[in-house]
Amino acid sequence: MEALENITYDEIKIGDSCTFKKTLTEKELILFAAVSGDVNPIHLDENFASHSMFKERIAHGMWSGSLVSATLATVMPGPGTIYLSQNLDFKRPVKLNDTLTVTLTAKSKDDEKHIVVFDCLVLNQEGKPVVAGEAKVIAPTTKIVVAKPKLPEISIGQAAVGAIA
Amino acid sequence: MEALENITYDEIKIGDSCTFKKTLTEKELILFAAVSGDVNPIHLDENFASHSMFKERIAHGMWSGSLVSATLATVMPGPGTIYLSQNLDFKRPVKLNDTLTVTLTAKSKDDEKHIVVFDCLVLNQEGKPVVAGEAKVIAPTTKIVVAKPKLPEISIGQAAVGAIA
Repeated sequence: MEALENITYDEIKIGDSCTFKKTLTEKELILFAAVSGDVNPIHLDENFASHSMFKERIAHGMWSGSLVSATLATVMPGPGTIYLSQNLDFKRPVKLNDTLTVTLTAKSKDDEKHIVVFDCLVLNQEGKPVVAGEAKVIAPTTKIVVAKPKLPEISIGQAAVGAIA
Repeated sequence: MEALENITYDEIKIGDSCTFKKTLTEKELILFAAVSGDVNPIHLDENFASHSMFKERIAHGMWSGSLVSATLATVMPGPGTIYLSQNLDFKRPVKLNDTLTVTLTAKSKDDEKHIVVFDCLVLNQEGKPVVAGEAKVIAPTTKIVVAKPKLPEISIGQAAVGAIA
């Protein structure tokens, strides 16, 4: 059984950092469109995207944002974290098969409210910045070790991938 | 055929607003966990969530953020928009069957770079703020009318919904 263990407020030191990686595939483009409702053709329609300034389909900017939140929620601080705010600057498009690495670095702590501010940097596989920002959270004060939830199988129909209504 | 038509930089007037609605179901919890990698049990594990301060499963905060980006990308300005930055303040948890309404309001325009800043407010079905923030985009200068991409069927296996590895 795989476990998720949080890093409590007291355990986090300023300067501590952690990373989280994920690769963009066609699956992420479709699932993010479905879950957000963002069916902009730049993410879904190869032909439309080929005539855009990007020349090919790109990830939803907020998909990179979702990786930042995944890092806060599952790596540092992890379970028990309360998300207060997030700033995101979108620096560069993300293309199919790009692998993003999120790095969070603790930059300030507020002992009274257990608030931690993290610098958030998302780089692509070439080390180029894709997203930069800052997250503010209330870090958990008690240790939590919990079984990592296992997701059900998700299957995507063949027919309409990139198709147009 | 359903179409997406953008609202160009010149068409957007300061004070213009638009809305976009989406309801949180179990499907959104699972798909957002899958696409982001955020399998924090507060979103997926009924039992864990029932012992948390929220008493039940809640949406990923960034799911509400993804609805803001969906509004920018599909309603105003719509196709051709370049996302520059987003700030999000998370105000309140989102629970199953909550219906969120995103409202974007144009608050400033920069004629030289075609930048538009939008106030972003996400309310739940009780009219209570869930997320507030600000988005900065480059609005498209040319009219785009494009077929709305149709997503393939997405099916989620029964067995492991909310289950633990």
